[in-house]
Amino acid sequence: DEIRAFAREIVVKEIEKHAADGLGRVDYALASGGATVMKHSEPYSVGKGSSWFYMTNRNGVHSNAEKMLRPSFGEPGQCFPLKGSSGFVQIKLRKAIIPEAVTLEHVAKSVAYDRSSAPKDCRVSGWLQGHDAIDIPVDTKRMFLLTEFSYDLEKSNAQTFNVMGLPSSIIDMIRLDFTSNHGSPSHTCIYRFRVHGHEPNSVSMMAMQS
Amino acid sequence: DEIRAFAREIVVKEIEKHAADGLGRVDYALASGGATVMKHSEPYSVGKGSSWFYMTNRNGVHSNAEKMLRPSFGEPGQCFPLKGSSGFVQIKLRKAIIPEAVTLEHVAKSVAYDRSSAPKDCRVSGWLQGHDAIDIPVDTKRMFLLTEFSYDLEKSNAQTFNVMGLPSSIIDMIRLDFTSNHGSPSHTCIYRFRVHGHEPNSVSMMAMQS
Amino acid sequence: DEIRAFAREIVVKEIEKHAADGLGRVDYALASGGATVMKHSEPYSVGKGSSWFYMTNRNGVHSNAEKMLRPSFGEPGQCFPLKGSSGFVQIKLRKAIIPEAVTLEHVAKSVAYDRSSAPKDCRVSGWLQGHDAIDIPVDTKRMFLLTEFSYDLEKSNAQTFNVMGLPSSIIDMIRLDFTSNHGSPSHTCIYRFRVHGHEPNSVSMMAMQS
Ligand SMILES: [K+]
Ligand SMILES: [K+]
Ligand SMILES: [K+]
Repeated sequence: DEIRAFAREIVVKEIEKHAADGLGRVDYALASGGATVMKHSEPYSVGKGSSWFYMTNRNGVHSNAEKMLRPSFGEPGQCFPLKGSSGFVQIKLRKAIIPEAVTLEHVAKSVAYDRSSAPKDCRVSGWLQGHDAIDIPVDTKRMFLLTEFSYDLEKSNAQTFNVMGLPSSIIDMIRLDFTSNHGSPSHTCIYRFRVHGHEPNSVSMMAMQS
Repeated sequence: DEIRAFAREIVVKEIEKHAADGLGRVDYALASGGATVMKHSEPYSVGKGSSWFYMTNRNGVHSNAEKMLRPSFGEPGQCFPLKGSSGFVQIKLRKAIIPEAVTLEHVAKSVAYDRSSAPKDCRVSGWLQGHDAIDIPVDTKRMFLLTEFSYDLEKSNAQTFNVMGLPSSIIDMIRLDFTSNHGSPSHTCIYRFRVHGHEPNSVSMMAMQS
Repeated sequence: DEIRAFAREIVVKEIEKHAADGLGRVDYALASGGATVMKHSEPYSVGKGSSWFYMTNRNGVHSNAEKMLRPSFGEPGQCFPLKGSSGFVQIKLRKAIIPEAVTLEHVAKSVAYDRSSAPKDCRVSGWLQGHDAIDIPVDTKRMFLLTEFSYDLEKSNAQTFNVMGLPSSIIDMIRLDFTSNHGSPSHTCIYRFRVHGHEPNSVSMMAMQS
């Protein structure tokens, strides 16, 4: 009976985490929370060249881009495919935050047709854009390198990487650069990218409490 | 080995429940089952005033209203936001049923940006509308108070409340009134509302069997 | 502590399987993977006769047909309903594969309004169509009977059946015929149909390795 109670406790806790977006961690890059893809390298399309024209909105962002800011629910294909083995995506976060970690997710090994399109070597940087017009070039002096990592096909399909050298600055824009993938010469698929952190106010409040 | 078998049994059962819409209980207010929102208090919109006009259908029901009759899958933002800290929603159930319980769900604490928009004090009533025209005012004498409750931020995010004073009457319309929320002055978010019960026929059949 | 570790290990493994599309098995009939419904018997519609016209695409395939090639996430109603107690669906797979098994899924018992619309006796056949025009009648000599089974309402809601008499031939088209259902005189609902197997290349590679 004690064992049963033990087991049930663990199960309920783990399922709760699973039900809470898989990780149980707030994501400031979630589309349904207000984040959006602002810019990206050339997307990969299986169809004819003309589809690119029809699939983009006014700002040149592909209609599939938002898929990387939404849950995938274990489905192969629910990703944003970019051309080649290197590229980038720039995301406007829901709010200005102090970033703590990022999570890169690919489809699970057990249901994947092919995982050679998974990103491999990645670099994540962030900056505070505020209400600047989108057309103004980003002042690279204000950019912060948040983390560099390599996505490992042998580990869990959602891999979290902490921001280096905390405490960090406030950011509302984030950029994921991938410089290699796991073998596909044609394209790289981004299933989901999450950004974890806290809002500046809550920090000040914590500081005041201690 | 026995322990392993024990543990697996519990796990499989709990995951089954989780996979079965989280609770493993029939929901007669589910949109994909045929239920619809018929009426509601003023919705909350972040954008300009004109959006209200574009976002409503012919009956004055907001296009986001149905979100409260669909699963949220752990995503913040998959809710129907109403203006202020009090308001209501009226739902036509899939079928006339004898109600047993209702479930109010908010986003899980671990992935929420802010939970001050969760409803707090609630009252649920129901009635049998049948094929009456929608415009005819509801005869309040026919309305039944089903339950009153307070949504608790410290408990599980899906909270079920039994109908008071069973056995109850047959209803096909239900109304959720919230008179307070957890602190937001601007709006209250309803992630999901479910209605549990049984169809009249199955009752009669049960009575006949005993 | 050892028991805790045991339990957690089992839980994490089972949740991983659950998160990986429920079964943790590759599905070559998944819509998001590129599979499509090519043909089916008369669909069942609740509304007026005219809806049939509006709900079909150019090839006479109903817009709801693809629901059977997508996850249902425990929601009743997320299915493709066909008229009567017998009928069929023909699916073009994502790729030519050597089939190993198929899975037929209905909504879970605990959340279902009524399960009399579940298919019962089924027959699955497959063939290689390649780039033949769709209009050319299938040469029945090339068709393979893959399996015959009966969907059991008392078992798990996703039921997997192995292909009989392996090793089998390469196919890219599959046809599910149901000859009876669990009691509904009006219609039969197909929640999801999956096709498992492997790509011809990977077999040759395995053969070369051994
Ligand atoms: K996704
Ligand atoms: K919802
Ligand atoms: K489905």
